[in-house]
Amino acid sequence: MDAIELRSDNAAGVAPELMAALAEANTGSALAYGGDDWSARLKQRAAEVFEHAGVSVFPVPSGTAANALALSALCPPWGSVLCHETAHIFVNEAGATSMFAGGAVMKGLPGAAHRLTPAAIERAFAETNWGDPHHSQPSVLSLTQLTDRGTMYSVEQLEALTAVARTRGLRVHLDGARLANAIARLGCTPAQATWKAGVDVLSLGAIKNGAMNTDAIVCFDPKLAEPLSYRLKRAGHVASKMRYPAAQLLAYLTGGLWLRLASTANAAMERLAAGLKARGVELLDEPPANMAFVRAGDALADQLERRGLLFYRMGGGVIRLVTSWQTTPEQIDRALALFD
Amino acid sequence: MDAIELRSDNAAGVAPELMAALAEANTGSALAYGGDDWSARLKQRAAEVFEHAGVSVFPVPSGTAANALALSALCPPWGSVLCHETAHIFVNEAGATSMFAGGAVMKGLPGAAHRLTPAAIERAFAETNWGDPHHSQPSVLSLTQLTDRGTMYSVEQLEALTAVARTRGLRVHLDGARLANAIARLGCTPAQATWKAGVDVLSLGAIKNGAMNTDAIVCFDPKLAEPLSYRLKRAGHVASKMRYPAAQLLAYLTGGLWLRLASTANAAMERLAAGLKARGVELLDEPPANMAFVRAGDALADQLERRGLLFYRMGGGVIRLVTSWQTTPEQIDRALALFD
Amino acid sequence: MDAIELRSDNAAGVAPELMAALAEANTGSALAYGGDDWSARLKQRAAEVFEHAGVSVFPVPSGTAANALALSALCPPWGSVLCHETAHIFVNEAGATSMFAGGAVMKGLPGAAHRLTPAAIERAFAETNWGDPHHSQPSVLSLTQLTDRGTMYSVEQLEALTAVARTRGLRVHLDGARLANAIARLGCTPAQATWKAGVDVLSLGAIKNGAMNTDAIVCFDPKLAEPLSYRLKRAGHVASKMRYPAAQLLAYLTGGLWLRLASTANAAMERLAAGLKARGVELLDEPPANMAFVRAGDALADQLERRGLLFYRMGGGVIRLVTSWQTTPEQIDRALALFD
Amino acid sequence: MDAIELRSDNAAGVAPELMAALAEANTGSALAYGGDDWSARLKQRAAEVFEHAGVSVFPVPSGTAANALALSALCPPWGSVLCHETAHIFVNEAGATSMFAGGAVMKGLPGAAHRLTPAAIERAFAETNWGDPHHSQPSVLSLTQLTDRGTMYSVEQLEALTAVARTRGLRVHLDGARLANAIARLGCTPAQATWKAGVDVLSLGAIKNGAMNTDAIVCFDPKLAEPLSYRLKRAGHVASKMRYPAAQLLAYLTGGLWLRLASTANAAMERLAAGLKARGVELLDEPPANMAFVRAGDALADQLERRGLLFYRMGGGVIRLVTSWQTTPEQIDRALALFD
Repeated sequence: MDAIELRSDNAAGVAPELMAALAEANTGSALAYGGDDWSARLKQRAAEVFEHAGVSVFPVPSGTAANALALSALCPPWGSVLCHETAHIFVNEAGATSMFAGGAVMKGLPGAAHRLTPAAIERAFAETNWGDPHHSQPSVLSLTQLTDRGTMYSVEQLEALTAVARTRGLRVHLDGARLANAIARLGCTPAQATWKAGVDVLSLGAIKNGAMNTDAIVCFDPKLAEPLSYRLKRAGHVASKMRYPAAQLLAYLTGGLWLRLASTANAAMERLAAGLKARGVELLDEPPANMAFVRAGDALADQLERRGLLFYRMGGGVIRLVTSWQTTPEQIDRALALFD
Repeated sequence: MDAIELRSDNAAGVAPELMAALAEANTGSALAYGGDDWSARLKQRAAEVFEHAGVSVFPVPSGTAANALALSALCPPWGSVLCHETAHIFVNEAGATSMFAGGAVMKGLPGAAHRLTPAAIERAFAETNWGDPHHSQPSVLSLTQLTDRGTMYSVEQLEALTAVARTRGLRVHLDGARLANAIARLGCTPAQATWKAGVDVLSLGAIKNGAMNTDAIVCFDPKLAEPLSYRLKRAGHVASKMRYPAAQLLAYLTGGLWLRLASTANAAMERLAAGLKARGVELLDEPPANMAFVRAGDALADQLERRGLLFYRMGGGVIRLVTSWQTTPEQIDRALALFD
Repeated sequence: MDAIELRSDNAAGVAPELMAALAEANTGSALAYGGDDWSARLKQRAAEVFEHAGVSVFPVPSGTAANALALSALCPPWGSVLCHETAHIFVNEAGATSMFAGGAVMKGLPGAAHRLTPAAIERAFAETNWGDPHHSQPSVLSLTQLTDRGTMYSVEQLEALTAVARTRGLRVHLDGARLANAIARLGCTPAQATWKAGVDVLSLGAIKNGAMNTDAIVCFDPKLAEPLSYRLKRAGHVASKMRYPAAQLLAYLTGGLWLRLASTANAAMERLAAGLKARGVELLDEPPANMAFVRAGDALADQLERRGLLFYRMGGGVIRLVTSWQTTPEQIDRALALFD
Repeated sequence: MDAIELRSDNAAGVAPELMAALAEANTGSALAYGGDDWSARLKQRAAEVFEHAGVSVFPVPSGTAANALALSALCPPWGSVLCHETAHIFVNEAGATSMFAGGAVMKGLPGAAHRLTPAAIERAFAETNWGDPHHSQPSVLSLTQLTDRGTMYSVEQLEALTAVARTRGLRVHLDGARLANAIARLGCTPAQATWKAGVDVLSLGAIKNGAMNTDAIVCFDPKLAEPLSYRLKRAGHVASKMRYPAAQLLAYLTGGLWLRLASTANAAMERLAAGLKARGVELLDEPPANMAFVRAGDALADQLERRGLLFYRMGGGVIRLVTSWQTTPEQIDRALALFD
């Protein structure tokens, strides 16, 4: 019987609706570098979905590209980016932001369940030598939704964090690698989850949620659009056959597909978490969306591995389980049975 | 009647064989970031096609990414890259190489028909203050095959150029955005066109020749593979769902597909050039592959535009015509008729 | 008998007035990093000398530091700096500007006698793909006064050049490595030679004119002062014992010392040029200040070298002769005798 | 009565021996950029003092320049530099190393009394994803002697730390801003304190110990000398009138002057510490050299300030006291009296 994939939503395939969008875009010729119809329609669609006329959308092939380029447009070379000490941009992107931002510095802050708090930011502000050239100047706050622990910020929490950031003039970036999963759970509008909560630039995840290597930078500040266009090109992040990423994102944001795909992943996790709790397996946090950290213990982890469950070990007997748009209830039930 | 696309091979669609490869790869789950079967098979296939056991292949989403990252691995920050003064890396990539290479400098050299000559390189060497820290040190020679004028280097010409580069220890990069078109015309092996002719790192074009936003860095120097892997990641140029670009490149390099696609484009240009010459229209060079520069004059250019021919104006009455894997003999015949 | 130094004004020593300023500053303790009295008085003095209340002065230890850091504050990473193709920043600073400006590109333009013309800039503008991310965007015009050939711009020429730059929104940098020599000859005010002629940021040379490794960035745009302070610190270009460079620059700008030192150098060159012309030796340009290029021929150059004249050979029998604040009329007369 | 300077050794003046060296160097002309006699003699002297024939010495105008440029030569752009979480390079240099090293990442490690331990480094190694491009690869260990808390490593401690670094191939940098003070106390040879203990490149402090804005990079790895020469030039860190910094460093390293100056500072601190302990004032650590952190309490700190003692407040009632080559026993006795 097939192994059950709970390692990462990055291991999932491409959603059939997006494969269809690619096929549909593959007709005739189209001007390169974004001079195509799909790109124009994508911009229009994003404006509707995010209720923001001045929005710009830049498709990019990875979340790292989205994050590092967005941050480089927000942070001067002598600035620092404040983020959670477990943030992907801080620990998993190999200095991408420092490179693109000309040597800008990342500063990781603590926070329970991988969530930043206003108090932690205020503490970082209090410790800052503002205006002193010997010290990098905090310039951007970067939040991650879902966090790398699978936890989530409420809209109110986002608003409180960005309000603190504004007290010292910081710009705000949201790493929304799993934003769709969060919005699907929060039940808020995309606008409420982003610019209305104080976000200037969004890394819009789509890859983990069914797209073929296509995320996007969504820029809510019109003044940053032109600088971003230059930064993207010189980073090699402007696709010549732009119609394909544009067509994917267009389909993704149309008719709520992105939220449906995310809801499927969330529902699978809900079923999984319920089953685990019924079996007395401890979860580190109540999983709000599609990612759970489980205190399995090494013996159980070994057993699961032998029986064909695919997952990551995080050390100390903790395992990470991630569902995707592709995870079925049957797979969850089979996975749960492996715990018995 | 439909407009006829001769603006750019970037405007063409994705070849059906590559669409099929994408569909075939879209089954089940696969480990992210290159830990998939397609990536392993691609490396094996590249070793066969290029007759080089130590080859590494890094799929990237653009030629600019391939060029700039390859050059950054070859050129120290205080080095300079010698290239033709019309090279894409020099005039069309917005400083990408200088950024990725930490401020390295590009130096454009002259050469008829957009081709470098050994004499031009020797002249640049003679003008260099070798070992003097006040001056960037020539460190890499970058050649473009086809050139941006559609002209071509013979294998012997490549060998002569790289031999001069080696006299001063320069590494050699080949921007092979249209390498398939060149090999299809030269009738040589891929090895002869690259590492056997002295190339250390190749930007392997596939996008202009039918791929969906997937080129590759092909590295013939095993010592550069690990540094490249780090450089790619921090540039956001490692696809998480790597199976899709890998599957495309695997199909591209299998059964000679890449050369068949290029031959179709070349044949279309051959038909076009013959027709133009029959009509007394002047071509700047004899087009060896799929790109021609034509002295049309502004009046004729206006007429062609009105009649639905899509092309680029280069100034001075010269127009650029590019065929692709998608160009049909019928389109060429219709295009020719528009000149009458 | 001693060799006669005409290689470079960089080979000259430190003026006694500046040695005295160093000794005077060396009393007691003083707050580091610019929190000293001399720094405060220097800012005040610069405001008077340049008739500009908002001026900032940043002492730096080299002209390269002044140029590259000033340009990095004026040019975005995706921008290009237009300058003469013989400018020091283009050919003698090893990519310093590209590094500090995050990969910005330098573009050298032609111009007789090493002087740029409005026409050359307009031509560069006409060839620019404005707003196209594939191309670096001209963002700064950098002029050199004196030029690297020892020629000079009149105030009217400076004004005409900066006026063209402004038509496309470019900022203006002046590499004033030998600005004092120019002002001494032009007889204009320092303000007329700089900000009143459209200069935003000045590299104020002092080292070639008698200072001990102390030039300065003089910034006429108050909005750039804070970014510059950060850029300087992270480049290691903020002296901790700032009182010493500040004291030197204070003395340099006090009582016209800088212009007196430069006038001495200029007068020495005037005497030299007159003597050379009397001897029928050809000068490439009439030297307005302290640098001459002389068509000596190789035989004469050999003779001069044997007889103890120190100078640089520029190829083709041309030699470069530079006088300094330290050159005496006696040395000039002895030098002239060596030509006989 | 004069205020007593205990803020920083950076606030001290220039030692008379070094002023004399500057005056002595100020005779006649000298080839620029290091082609002078003083530079040649400095290299020779450094080889003797450090007992290392292959040593290179690069004078630079600041410790930040020395540190950041040295580290950029040791650390690839995708690498990370391990250092103490209080190291100057980590908290006081505004990202200089990240900039010069093309986006390299700094990682601060804990350690009591500002000293790193082998265990802390081993822990960092254990937490590293070696060979995984998602993570910066630890590439350099940077140690600080004296630490920023005034504490000191013994030679054995240095050896133990560099031995751990070598187990994973890391290069070793020593920030020796106060190295002379440490060697004066340790009583070891300069070689034992540096390359014999595993140091590849040294930032040799001189400014805090009496020099006029002249520190040096001392490079014990001959293969790094040429890259460093390029990195320095393009950073604007090669003085044209190199004879002045070279003459200072030559005098500094001659006849043990550097150690005499440091011993004076150390003796002043010894006298101060003894007096403070006699008065029952608590020192955070026993000061081995010229810097002490004292738990004064805010009331006493206020009193000291009013009475004319110059020092820095570190928060929590702790004050920092630093002696210099210029501090006299009389000043110490006057300072102690202010505590009564």
